[in-house]
Amino acid sequence: MAGTKDRIMEASAELFRRNGYTGTGLKQIVTAAGAPFGSLYHFFPGGKEQLGVEVIHASGMMYLQLFDIFFDNETDLVHGVEAAFAGAAVTLRETDYADACPIATVALEVASTNEPLRKATAEVFTAWIDYGTAKFQPFGLPEATARKLTISLVNSLEGAFVLSRALRDTEPLAVAGATTALAAKAALAEGSG
Amino acid sequence: MAGTKDRIMEASAELFRRNGYTGTGLKQIVTAAGAPFGSLYHFFPGGKEQLGVEVIHASGMMYLQLFDIFFDNETDLVHGVEAAFAGAAVTLRETDYADACPIATVALEVASTNEPLRKATAEVFTAWIDYGTAKFQPFGLPEATARKLTISLVNSLEGAFVLSRALRDTEPLAVAGATTALAAKAALAEGSG
Repeated sequence: MAGTKDRIMEASAELFRRNGYTGTGLKQIVTAAGAPFGSLYHFFPGGKEQLGVEVIHASGMMYLQLFDIFFDNETDLVHGVEAAFAGAAVTLRETDYADACPIATVALEVASTNEPLRKATAEVFTAWIDYGTAKFQPFGLPEATARKLTISLVNSLEGAFVLSRALRDTEPLAVAGATTALAAKAALAEGSG
Repeated sequence: MAGTKDRIMEASAELFRRNGYTGTGLKQIVTAAGAPFGSLYHFFPGGKEQLGVEVIHASGMMYLQLFDIFFDNETDLVHGVEAAFAGAAVTLRETDYADACPIATVALEVASTNEPLRKATAEVFTAWIDYGTAKFQPFGLPEATARKLTISLVNSLEGAFVLSRALRDTEPLAVAGATTALAAKAALAEGSG
């Protein structure tokens, strides 16, 4: 059984992803985590904001693994891109359109209202962009091209999550996959040019 | 001077865009609108949820005009796409990264938590997709191709807003513009093929 702090982090990540940061109360978090209320301030003396920063970092960084899953042991960059978007569509349908990006809802909520949380989301996106850039270069892409492709992938994925969740339809994710596959082909052509 | 109902709608649209739906209180709204508290329930007997639905519809539908601005009197589809993303980047910088999509924050907040508001965001995205599809067909695109290009544009724009606001940097919007221009070129090649 996970420790109390881990359970609080996991329950918060799930609640933030589904209900947002503002829409999640501390009572909800301790109830979902099966933790006594006092334990929250024991582990997070800075309260909800400190918890928010730690959850954004932890759940955001965990998603770096997705680059490994879809692009390690993959020789075809375009195929890896297509598989990543197809996988996202399956997850979205299986979770009734709830489990998408772990930090996007919070990122939009706090962008203009809470600077420590905004910075935490920026650190996660920066880590994704740097990690994807390093992961795509071995496919034969110059660094600047690999960076643009990574940003294009994350842009399309984040936007398609907004539309697919609102519409309860994976069509936007399918279009995003096709567009990013096109961007990958263009990047490879540029890399070999 | 705008009527009280209009002022409440405008203040709400601004507050929802910057702080989200959950993060906006009714007191904040009437204060920003310079309206007596009672007027809110006079115009919106369904309270915050009814106000939310009306604001999502009104501010979302207003953005349909952006398709007119960038694509009416435009003979070059790719140029129109580039100009639209460049315009979004200017607006984002000028508003200190606050004014992006009028409904995205709310869309993510309510997708799994409030069905009437979720439906309102879905109606707006559906209207954008249908309007863009009709707007892009005259450039020589078959309907299915025009629809995919519209969804690709909205995906990329929404995702780039998430990243650009978090990073306080317009690089993701620039990449999104380049990717959508690439998608537009591919769509035109498909249309003439």
